[in-house]
Amino acid sequence: MDYKKLDKTTVVEYILNIKKIITYFGSDDLIADEIGDGNLNYVYRVSSAQDPQKSLIVKQAVPYLRCVGEEFSLTRERMTYEIRALQKFYSIFPNFIPNIYHASEEMSLVVMEYLDSHIIMRKGLIEKIKYKNFSNHISAYMAATLYYTSSLYLSSAQKRELVERFNGNRELCKLTEDLVFSFPFMDHETNDNENVENNPDAQKLFSDMEFKEKVLELKYKFMTQSDALLHGDLHTGSIMINENETYIIDPEFAFVGPFGFDVGALLANLVNNYIHHSVVTKDEDYKSWLLATIKDVLEKFSEKFLSFWSESKESALLVDGYLDEVSLKKYKERFVKNILRDSVGFAGCKMARRVYGVAGVEEIRGIEDEALRAEAERMALKIAREFVIKYDKIESIDEILEIMKNAG
Amino acid sequence: MDYKKLDKTTVVEYILNIKKIITYFGSDDLIADEIGDGNLNYVYRVSSAQDPQKSLIVKQAVPYLRCVGEEFSLTRERMTYEIRALQKFYSIFPNFIPNIYHASEEMSLVVMEYLDSHIIMRKGLIEKIKYKNFSNHISAYMAATLYYTSSLYLSSAQKRELVERFNGNRELCKLTEDLVFSFPFMDHETNDNENVENNPDAQKLFSDMEFKEKVLELKYKFMTQSDALLHGDLHTGSIMINENETYIIDPEFAFVGPFGFDVGALLANLVNNYIHHSVVTKDEDYKSWLLATIKDVLEKFSEKFLSFWSESKESALLVDGYLDEVSLKKYKERFVKNILRDSVGFAGCKMARRVYGVAGVEEIRGIEDEALRAEAERMALKIAREFVIKYDKIESIDEILEIMKNAG
Repeated sequence: MDYKKLDKTTVVEYILNIKKIITYFGSDDLIADEIGDGNLNYVYRVSSAQDPQKSLIVKQAVPYLRCVGEEFSLTRERMTYEIRALQKFYSIFPNFIPNIYHASEEMSLVVMEYLDSHIIMRKGLIEKIKYKNFSNHISAYMAATLYYTSSLYLSSAQKRELVERFNGNRELCKLTEDLVFSFPFMDHETNDNENVENNPDAQKLFSDMEFKEKVLELKYKFMTQSDALLHGDLHTGSIMINENETYIIDPEFAFVGPFGFDVGALLANLVNNYIHHSVVTKDEDYKSWLLATIKDVLEKFSEKFLSFWSESKESALLVDGYLDEVSLKKYKERFVKNILRDSVGFAGCKMARRVYGVAGVEEIRGIEDEALRAEAERMALKIAREFVIKYDKIESIDEILEIMKNAG
Repeated sequence: MDYKKLDKTTVVEYILNIKKIITYFGSDDLIADEIGDGNLNYVYRVSSAQDPQKSLIVKQAVPYLRCVGEEFSLTRERMTYEIRALQKFYSIFPNFIPNIYHASEEMSLVVMEYLDSHIIMRKGLIEKIKYKNFSNHISAYMAATLYYTSSLYLSSAQKRELVERFNGNRELCKLTEDLVFSFPFMDHETNDNENVENNPDAQKLFSDMEFKEKVLELKYKFMTQSDALLHGDLHTGSIMINENETYIIDPEFAFVGPFGFDVGALLANLVNNYIHHSVVTKDEDYKSWLLATIKDVLEKFSEKFLSFWSESKESALLVDGYLDEVSLKKYKERFVKNILRDSVGFAGCKMARRVYGVAGVEEIRGIEDEALRAEAERMALKIAREFVIKYDKIESIDEILEIMKNAG
């Protein structure tokens, strides 16, 4: 059907045409509520009137940036890539992706499982919840989605098909290029200019050419390095979690880009939370848990990535028998070390952009006390700078933790 | 119209339906001859019976590798990318591309200017012709086609559109992955196995894991680094030349890949010619001209690339005002140095693959005296190895020349 923006009434009419959804709800009466603080999209929860436990989520994109309004146009085709990414990631590792009941690229709409016992991970981390399964889950998710969509696993033709399927996600790639890698490091109208004005720390950042040259190097990698299908925005707000389960949502920024960008996004957001607890709660026990979690995530990511790789013999990159065992092992270890290095660089960009750029994170921009907020910002910029300057020389995960600890 | 393979008769009927061609020939009678040693395609020269000076070239792809036969299928869509590349390169720098009279993606066919006073450059170099304008021409061609199809010039959306337009050229990319980066360095049925068997130099190459690991690094760049629209096969057999003019033909391998691959292909083929004259003709004067030409090509390429870059302010990569002048200059110089480094690495792969791989070059495989041929092969492998091992640490163009001179 042709695109039509749905509302609380028409969303019910729409989904009652879908067999799988009729089966799910039976003959129950349905009620729709608009939920969520959707920056980009409309999100409805559709529930059974007879049994409110039975609920599904309907998410529809509109052809503008919802949080700004219709004057900020953004084509709704971003939902096309979100749908394609959800389906692709689900096919790789269904455990970590909400069950999809229906998707329509024409309607820019997806109907998914309602995660009723999970919260946005960022909130949980602010509340100092220790998710003991998280490092296991997220490392498996990242290693699997990145490895199985890369030239280390796919054939040459399969890889180019994958690039084609996501290459159209131009607008959101451009948003990242501008809002992660450029505008937050220069005077720009999109910045949090109330904080930038008369702020010597901001002026220091904007004139830090050594840092900005390295950011440019990383921006170039983001734009031109086609390693694997990325989530594209893997921060702790894109993770729904509870003690037992971890779900990755909102992959509308998905495209084929550099391995390190997803791992780096996650790292940046864990470090931002560490900064919050360093400055605000000063909870040493939770900080130690965060440090251990970061180490665990990165170690397990490397192990799992290498373990998946060890199961495949032929791929676009490797012809069976090309290298002997010893050299192949060395090559693979260096390869994964380079992914971690890039991740540290991207993490630095992602952390720094949250300080003065358009979209802050709750852990830092949400600090109400001005002096504490400034302290958190300085700590974020200090760590971010070291990440960006040193990323391509990082030798071990412990070095990453040392940079964090020394900034406190 | 639907695809139909043409022959000497039907090719005349076909082109007489095209207005621009009718205008060119007037009411002359037309004669078609099959010409060329087309490995992949059929090439006809269509001439006026009244004035044989009036001629055009008709090139049509067939759905197999012509030099092997119908059993080696290769989709004729490669001509789609050749047409698109010819048109794109012509739009950037028409001086160096034959004038196109007609192109049909459906018919996998292109009608072009007949270059009657030009020869394939490889033949000219073997005959020791000094092309005094060549370094000026080829450096301008490479700098312009690479710069103006890169993220340094295009907007983010334009760049992704360009990737899309060439992303389908999968079969020929795969050929390069296999035949340039993999099979020539291991036991493989496609190799020149008459030469490989009982050849200690071949066994040494096949077990040289340090070299092969670096080749794998370069293969990965080839597969995943989307810098700019490449010709994709820029050897001296893809250049038609005389004293005054230089034309680049046959871009059927075109795709968006790493900057250094085209520059490296050209460098490899100039070095192969240098080896030929070191071993066979021992003509020191011509060797000096080749060395000076290589230096000139690489220097002028760098200068022109930087000069084009200095004329653009905004692009996908650079937001105006992001870096100060001093840092921007430094960044750009490092950027171009990295292109040259990658070029040296790719040149090494391209040289080494010509020794035992499926397609040799006239300058080396064409040497009839077995001892001389073996000497040329050893020299090629020596230079290729140094190029591949040292590529990412090369500091100056002179170092490249030193490697060549020391191998003689």
